[in-house]
Amino acid sequence: MRAAVIHAPRDIRVEDRDQPSLISQRDAVVKVAAACVCGSDLWPYRGVTETKHARPIGHEMIGEVTAVGSEVTGLAVGDFVISPFTMNDGTCQACRNGMTTGCEHLSGFGGKDAYGDPVGGAQAQYVRVPDASATLVVVPGPVDPALYPSLLTLSDVFSTGHHAAVSAAVGPGKTVVVVGDGAVGLCAVLAAKRLGAARIIAMSRHADRQALAREFGATDIVETRGDEGVQAVRDLLGGDLADCAVEAVGTEESMDQALHVVRAGGNLGFVGVPHGVPTIGMRYLFDTNITVGGGMAPARTYIPELLPDVLSGAIDPGRVFDLELPLDEAAEAYAAMDERRAIKVLLRP
Amino acid sequence: MRAAVIHAPRDIRVEDRDQPSLISQRDAVVKVAAACVCGSDLWPYRGVTETKHARPIGHEMIGEVTAVGSEVTGLAVGDFVISPFTMNDGTCQACRNGMTTGCEHLSGFGGKDAYGDPVGGAQAQYVRVPDASATLVVVPGPVDPALYPSLLTLSDVFSTGHHAAVSAAVGPGKTVVVVGDGAVGLCAVLAAKRLGAARIIAMSRHADRQALAREFGATDIVETRGDEGVQAVRDLLGGDLADCAVEAVGTEESMDQALHVVRAGGNLGFVGVPHGVPTIGMRYLFDTNITVGGGMAPARTYIPELLPDVLSGAIDPGRVFDLELPLDEAAEAYAAMDERRAIKVLLRP
Repeated sequence: MRAAVIHAPRDIRVEDRDQPSLISQRDAVVKVAAACVCGSDLWPYRGVTETKHARPIGHEMIGEVTAVGSEVTGLAVGDFVISPFTMNDGTCQACRNGMTTGCEHLSGFGGKDAYGDPVGGAQAQYVRVPDASATLVVVPGPVDPALYPSLLTLSDVFSTGHHAAVSAAVGPGKTVVVVGDGAVGLCAVLAAKRLGAARIIAMSRHADRQALAREFGATDIVETRGDEGVQAVRDLLGGDLADCAVEAVGTEESMDQALHVVRAGGNLGFVGVPHGVPTIGMRYLFDTNITVGGGMAPARTYIPELLPDVLSGAIDPGRVFDLELPLDEAAEAYAAMDERRAIKVLLRP
Repeated sequence: MRAAVIHAPRDIRVEDRDQPSLISQRDAVVKVAAACVCGSDLWPYRGVTETKHARPIGHEMIGEVTAVGSEVTGLAVGDFVISPFTMNDGTCQACRNGMTTGCEHLSGFGGKDAYGDPVGGAQAQYVRVPDASATLVVVPGPVDPALYPSLLTLSDVFSTGHHAAVSAAVGPGKTVVVVGDGAVGLCAVLAAKRLGAARIIAMSRHADRQALAREFGATDIVETRGDEGVQAVRDLLGGDLADCAVEAVGTEESMDQALHVVRAGGNLGFVGVPHGVPTIGMRYLFDTNITVGGGMAPARTYIPELLPDVLSGAIDPGRVFDLELPLDEAAEAYAAMDERRAIKVLLRP
């Protein structure tokens, strides 16, 4: 089968690899119908994180189950599934509380699973999924291929945007600022709209992203940053700060920006993977009573909740894909996102 | 009138001062029925914070209104009132959202108010209260003096313990760890009990505080700290971590302890005033999805909610006072708390 492999920064190759098969009886194998490139895939691509040896890459996918182990329940060969970007056991304290990304047996794509066995990347024709019963979510069939892009976003990007909005306590009537206009930030705009926010202010300097933000429900755009950005938010809100802010970048600057647009007693939801070792000063939180929540989205928990709205067409998060390429052109997909020629690229195996 | 004045570290004197009168027409003057010493009063007492010049001290009090300005509404001379430990205007965005300690015109006792006028300390026979309409809460009379201690805790310590529990998302059936066995931590135990927590683990090494913690609803006591403390919590919870933790100290160590006893996706509520410049690592929050909230308690918002339970005797937070002294012995009150001979001292003017 064909699979994307990262060898070094800016060196993505699509190669022939052995087709995966079951290792544990709790596994499934999925024939990938669509995968994509994540903003976090750009870290090793850009050399921000080290690539010590060549490894398969990609962690978002939908597809059809082609094999299931004897201990797998609730899944059958032929089922169309969405995979969250991590696998979880479904039984530990974190899983019992729905925080599946805190699982004691958390596994990721493109490395080794929690049990020590190799797992391929999701940018591939097939991939083995450990702990399949607890991880994969079946989409009731038949599945319209036109829905693939939006279904694929539930794997990570829209579930993560939703987590940002939930962590920011977005709800009916709330005012929200979204810091970060990448695919996750844009999905957070859509999630905030879905959750009933009254005002959604997207901080963005890019015309194409501003346009999609507005399509997703942004009521206002702020292009300035820092104190000027805070003042722009106040100007839009009649002198007030926002009830909620979403941080979808992961830098100390963006966290700082997000903290300073929130009112006393408001909420900040963050899903940007922290770069370096950013910290939050306790004193600012103490003085403002801003509550900070977020982290790696428990996509597995959110997929069943969000799926009906995708299937009904109520939301169309697949609009974040502004480029679609065959899997064999994965290198170009990375380059397009790296150079900001594309917001997010869908790959067809 | 008599009032406690701090001159320098370990130098508290009760002196004759001018009786306060109205300055603004939004003021009230209160004849103090009971005041007390706060853990945070020990900071200047111990020299942790600087005392540049002598100033009146104390910020918790209940008493009788003796004068009201012409613009004051909802208050009359003779009313028995509880004062939150800060004053607020009632109209800004923070106040409209109930986060009164984030008020744009926040005033404190023992300094200058938000309008530049001097405010006395609450450890005094009389004190002027700016923004009285929005600040003071009337207790329906006649008020039984036996309730003074518990009513006085609503001014700060029990409202702060309640804020810690609310910020930690304590609710029915939850498991809670309280880090800090000072008066605030003990009040957080009582607040957690009141909010329906199923298990309340108090981290305490002092027999007298452990006893009061149990009386307030602690189901378990943990004496160890650090990794050992975390393991002790796991042992009590069948291998699990707690749903919620309360941090009621304010040091980096106690924040760290509290963070590490909470499960993935759980909540940490903090009310310990941050000492120095403690920070929280974003990466740990990201990896665990622990939500962090808290800060200076909006006591003004909580008093009306908590008051009925004090008046009915459903809760008796006044039990935190294990020493009562006349105001003139304020110096001894500070010494007793400093030397841990008392948990919290009530002062009778």
